Amino acid sequence: MRIIVDAMGGDNAPLAIVEGALDAAKDENLNIVLVGDEAKVGEIIASRGACPANVTVHHAAESVTMEDDPLGVLRTKKDSSMAVSLRMLQSGDGDAVVSAGNTGALLFAATHYVRTVHGVRRAPIATILPLPHPVLLLDSGANLGYHTDYDVQWAVMGSIYMKNAGGVENPRVALLNNGTEPTKGVPEVADAYKLLAARDDINFIGNVESRDIPAGVCDVLVTDGFTGNIVIKLMEGMGTFFKETMNDVFSQTVASRLGYLTVRGSLHRTLHSLSSECTGGAPILGLRKPVIKAHGNSNAAAAAAAIRQAAIFASSGAIEAVAAAAPSFTDVDVPAPAGV
Amino acid sequence: MRIIVDAMGGDNAPLAIVEGALDAAKDENLNIVLVGDEAKVGEIIASRGACPANVTVHHAAESVTMEDDPLGVLRTKKDSSMAVSLRMLQSGDGDAVVSAGNTGALLFAATHYVRTVHGVRRAPIATILPLPHPVLLLDSGANLGYHTDYDVQWAVMGSIYMKNAGGVENPRVALLNNGTEPTKGVPEVADAYKLLAARDDINFIGNVESRDIPAGVCDVLVTDGFTGNIVIKLMEGMGTFFKETMNDVFSQTVASRLGYLTVRGSLHRTLHSLSSECTGGAPILGLRKPVIKAHGNSNAAAAAAAIRQAAIFASSGAIEAVAAAAPSFTDVDVPAPAGV
Repeated sequence: MRIIVDAMGGDNAPLAIVEGALDAAKDENLNIVLVGDEAKVGEIIASRGACPANVTVHHAAESVTMEDDPLGVLRTKKDSSMAVSLRMLQSGDGDAVVSAGNTGALLFAATHYVRTVHGVRRAPIATILPLPHPVLLLDSGANLGYHTDYDVQWAVMGSIYMKNAGGVENPRVALLNNGTEPTKGVPEVADAYKLLAARDDINFIGNVESRDIPAGVCDVLVTDGFTGNIVIKLMEGMGTFFKETMNDVFSQTVASRLGYLTVRGSLHRTLHSLSSECTGGAPILGLRKPVIKAHGNSNAAAAAAAIRQAAIFASSGAIEAVAAAAPSFTDVDVPAPAGV
Repeated sequence: MRIIVDAMGGDNAPLAIVEGALDAAKDENLNIVLVGDEAKVGEIIASRGACPANVTVHHAAESVTMEDDPLGVLRTKKDSSMAVSLRMLQSGDGDAVVSAGNTGALLFAATHYVRTVHGVRRAPIATILPLPHPVLLLDSGANLGYHTDYDVQWAVMGSIYMKNAGGVENPRVALLNNGTEPTKGVPEVADAYKLLAARDDINFIGNVESRDIPAGVCDVLVTDGFTGNIVIKLMEGMGTFFKETMNDVFSQTVASRLGYLTVRGSLHRTLHSLSSECTGGAPILGLRKPVIKAHGNSNAAAAAAAIRQAAIFASSGAIEAVAAAAPSFTDVDVPAPAGV
């Protein structure tokens, strides 16, 4: 298994990415190609000791920044570590790509170089929500606006991913909606409900309201990219808010500061388990080969988790299963409104 | 100030609503009319002692249930406490209505009986988010789907409400979006940004991402009813989740159970301040008279807070200010896309 890593992508690149790759390389079944500035990457590796036999560096002169126009990656940044990584994947020089770089650029470039499976309308970013019970939320920000057929395709692809790469036997698939009744939501979502309920290749459990997300009532949660993005960032913001609130509560008196000492260990373990470090990056689904988007602010642990996730994705058979399911996507036909 | 209270609306009606009304009636400047089953309401009042001089009961034979089709309130439930309350408001027999009943029914009935201000396209439900810094989120679920002109009208109405009834001098108005750049979001939201930036009657601060909501970076947050509903319910769900997580953390060892005792007081005060009991119900904006939607599961404290909120709304001048601003709503014209 050979994982191509965009060493220059993300807020803490290349340092955190290279460190994460070196950590992931302790698994001798993995071969890791770090794509990026050979001098900088080599220097970080050298500072950590001898380069492991299963880690190589592939030079790329440029890198995509967070400020770059996403389309630029295909025009002015063709020699960026991101574009080079994806072309290597496309040409068979590796089994999966991991990048923590500019999300929009990665989507454009992955769709351009790696391409979507025939029949897939749009490739969604599928994010594992950092909760005690893992929930795969898709789309988490790639494709904005309500589309019935996107919802249906994403539900099927999300189910395949959680089954093959997530180890969930019969994933419970739900639509995120503003109520549980089948007719709830904007017309596009209500239509998606009908189509999903009629499919026999997924375990569709109906609508889920956002208040029930943290309780883990489903394994796959389908929504449009706008709503998905709001959900992920609100969970992040609420997490920060509660941490700050607890800090305030614990710091109020001498007694409460002592009280903090009694829970410090379990509190930190709990908060750590709810951080994105443990969830391992977000697969972009519907592409012909595995691409994992790591969080932009990935530290070394998050980068290592994303690389391991990429290896699981590549060996899971999920890509092949999506390709096998895709012919059914062309059958998607929204039932006509009542009375027409 | 005469507040009309739908005594039969909500999960805990009539008991919690009547108790809340009796509590609110301690303010002698308020006159409260409880609309509902005279026998049941009278019995609850009698069980609490003599009926205060500023509380009266107006009989209504029926009530709208949570299961009722919202449209039914105008057809088969014309004599319900909700419909009677709104007709009393419309005919001048009171200054504001408070109901914890079926949200959809209240919206239909309020729009039908009380009517929207001329020029207002849709009446949004504006909810004060239960956060240390109050944020008025609108729409929180009344009107689904993206509409540029709704966003613009709601921004102006939300700003007026927070200024007149919320005591915020120069409310910071923001659009909820998936990024802070002006061009972010679905086209309808990006268009709303342009129109809002061009207005001089509001303090528009641009886009806000959901992760920044809890920090109180704005006073008024505008979004469509679908997204707004997801936000409110996710905040609720995350609150429950964190409470349960903290319970787990504190219950793990003898020491941690003792540690809990050191923060119990401040923890409960903090959690209470973040509950909807303190926020006092959600105004439906853009109507010709004040209508407050109390939370469906309101207890007595929440009902009392909603009644006080209704009195503030009715005396705030917000209704008149919206009517004065509404002529500018008809000027709404989305700029043509670049190049057209």
